[in-house]
Amino acid sequence: MTTQLEEARSGKITPAMEAAARTESVDPATLRDAVAAGHAVIPANIALHNSQPKIVGRAFLTKVNANIGFSPDLSSGETELAKAEAAVAAGADFLMDLSVGRDVARMRQAILDACGLPVGTVPVYEAFARVGSDIDTLDEATLLSVIRDQAKEGVDFMTLHAGILREHVPLAVNRLLGIASRGGSILAEWMEKHGCENPFYSRWDEVLDICHEHDVTVSLGDGLRPGCLADASDEAQFAELEVLGALVKRCRERGVQVMVEGPGHVPFDQIEDNMLRERRICDDAPFYVLGPVVTDIAPGYDHITSCIGATAAAYYGASLLCYVTPAEHLALPTVEDVRTGVIAYRIAAHAADVAKGHPGARDIDDEMAKARIGFDWERQFELALDGETARARFEQSRCESKDDSPDHCSMCGKDFCAVRASQRLKGTA
Amino acid sequence: MTTQLEEARSGKITPAMEAAARTESVDPATLRDAVAAGHAVIPANIALHNSQPKIVGRAFLTKVNANIGFSPDLSSGETELAKAEAAVAAGADFLMDLSVGRDVARMRQAILDACGLPVGTVPVYEAFARVGSDIDTLDEATLLSVIRDQAKEGVDFMTLHAGILREHVPLAVNRLLGIASRGGSILAEWMEKHGCENPFYSRWDEVLDICHEHDVTVSLGDGLRPGCLADASDEAQFAELEVLGALVKRCRERGVQVMVEGPGHVPFDQIEDNMLRERRICDDAPFYVLGPVVTDIAPGYDHITSCIGATAAAYYGASLLCYVTPAEHLALPTVEDVRTGVIAYRIAAHAADVAKGHPGARDIDDEMAKARIGFDWERQFELALDGETARARFEQSRCESKDDSPDHCSMCGKDFCAVRASQRLKGTA
Repeated sequence: MTTQLEEARSGKITPAMEAAARTESVDPATLRDAVAAGHAVIPANIALHNSQPKIVGRAFLTKVNANIGFSPDLSSGETELAKAEAAVAAGADFLMDLSVGRDVARMRQAILDACGLPVGTVPVYEAFARVGSDIDTLDEATLLSVIRDQAKEGVDFMTLHAGILREHVPLAVNRLLGIASRGGSILAEWMEKHGCENPFYSRWDEVLDICHEHDVTVSLGDGLRPGCLADASDEAQFAELEVLGALVKRCRERGVQVMVEGPGHVPFDQIEDNMLRERRICDDAPFYVLGPVVTDIAPGYDHITSCIGATAAAYYGASLLCYVTPAEHLALPTVEDVRTGVIAYRIAAHAADVAKGHPGARDIDDEMAKARIGFDWERQFELALDGETARARFEQSRCESKDDSPDHCSMCGKDFCAVRASQRLKGTA
Repeated sequence: MTTQLEEARSGKITPAMEAAARTESVDPATLRDAVAAGHAVIPANIALHNSQPKIVGRAFLTKVNANIGFSPDLSSGETELAKAEAAVAAGADFLMDLSVGRDVARMRQAILDACGLPVGTVPVYEAFARVGSDIDTLDEATLLSVIRDQAKEGVDFMTLHAGILREHVPLAVNRLLGIASRGGSILAEWMEKHGCENPFYSRWDEVLDICHEHDVTVSLGDGLRPGCLADASDEAQFAELEVLGALVKRCRERGVQVMVEGPGHVPFDQIEDNMLRERRICDDAPFYVLGPVVTDIAPGYDHITSCIGATAAAYYGASLLCYVTPAEHLALPTVEDVRTGVIAYRIAAHAADVAKGHPGARDIDDEMAKARIGFDWERQFELALDGETARARFEQSRCESKDDSPDHCSMCGKDFCAVRASQRLKGTA
């Protein structure tokens, strides 16, 4: 088998490239060249479950990933499938199944069958679950066999925390919040208990062989991403990033597509530097960021704290945004949280695309402005990221209004409406 | 009477300066010097209703304003008072009463009596209402007498759209969305109908006499703020800004405190330039911005689209953020919208203060991180911007969980909790 990366290097435009190019009206050759350079990836397992190929890279539309998955405490396969459906309906581009606990394989299969989006996983979760959450029993063979099994099932991209090394653990332990990454913390504990190097790192060639065989896109996990503002841009985070840069190179040499995961919790002023640094160290491999949240003091609103950071991140360097929901730091998200999170992140992605001057990105905003000046409410709801919610708000308010005619809204009333005044001025001025 | 500005220039530290300095632990002399330079304002009418003086300026904490007020179509004085209470409870620093229609004077008095925050208004609304929304009848005397009446009542700051001139109207008419400002559109139509210059501008000295007498802080309205991304940073917007810069100078010469209002709808990449431009043209007069929203396509979520822009605005130059609620572009906000809007804007203000490196701003984030690593949920709710909401989310999830012990949350469950792993690593590494 050859991967999308190898095909691109050989000058070939694959059906996946064609399809990805079509969904965002770009020239397939441009897309192929970006894949060949490693500046873009198409996470698409050769098993090709029923998903629509999508491209991740700076030259293309910013994409949104939604995480779903049950925890040992809460939820069920049925509920998680409902979340997957909600994420798809709200417009997510990618889906990660982060289920931990029992029956994760069945969950994953259901997601692969049902969702129609490229699907990612974090294999160390299943490995840890297979050994009954016993770090002493967890061994390298289990880790590799989980990667192999999931690759065979058709997983399109995998978060592999290969960059967190033994020498990093003391750096992380001295932080205010320690290790915020679930996968990173498992690997850190494993290295401490077994006195060995990170098995993903030490057996990276074998990992790449599996990924190559199935064209699984590697998403290099940031096990040392900061878990609070105080830990942002620290020695631990940047030490791991250097390793990730080296691993990007090895992926590319092996013909394996690769992207890099990023923080997390970062003050607003540090986002630009974080993005430029990744692009430099990882030679413009697509950057896949989680938020970042720009303050730690708003639990219950972390879709907002993080979509502020995500907009800046996508403007300065990220290509794929992993959503954060209002449940973050408090609980497993509900179906409604998933919907809210995806909408918030589509806002961030689109705002960044407009700011980057992505060709045609602002057209829909201009269409909305035209619909507003024309009081064409139906068109506004059609153009809106969440037309259903917009319509509900408008109609509820009209029901309660003294004047429910559609030529104004209840905010200002007819006489004080600036849009109506603008219409009149256009006629006279 | 002398104003805070004149007192500051003469080297005096007034009780209002003392009080404002105390609320944010700064040296009163620093605060006085910023007021004297015109780089900060303390909107506090000499009538001193029961409000707590607050300072607005780059060197101080970023502040949040909440707009309330009924429209002719919807709501009542009672409902608007409930919104004022909700805004205060959620932590707004300033309140503007934007009521339009009948009984605005009674509404304003109730707000001044009840809210405990400095209160702002937009006098042209009441003037237009007094003449039965008839632009032909509206005259300069009415405008001046409304300003005088409101100043006597104790209004602390007033939006005065003095910068939109006759020559600007054709520029605005040719825009995609025309004029988005309610006040700006009234003045534009007035100038067109009467064939005269903007009365606020032509009679500015008289306006300043009134403001001086009562120490009303002038908030120079941006009648030509862009109403959609396409109109951002255009000739109309910047032509008005030049006039605002000249008016800032005249305010200062007359000893009147002044701040400047800004957009509105601005793509993310243009925010920095907009902020730096205002600071330059208006000689670092405090900048008071509405959002800006960074995309037009998310009605129902404009508290989010705008608090992305507001964070960047406050980071680069704004000192006071006017909230936008989820109802924006659709309807008059509800009490719940007001609460949501204020929380979103406190996130933006705080994130910007952290990013600016405001002394001590990040301390509360660090406290939150400590509470998280210690699983001290009570402390987390105490530190949270909206502890009630955070608690409700957490407790709901615990009720439904298989394991409801407080030493983890339902997101990852106990075995997969990175914070628990970090605690163990701290013990062993």
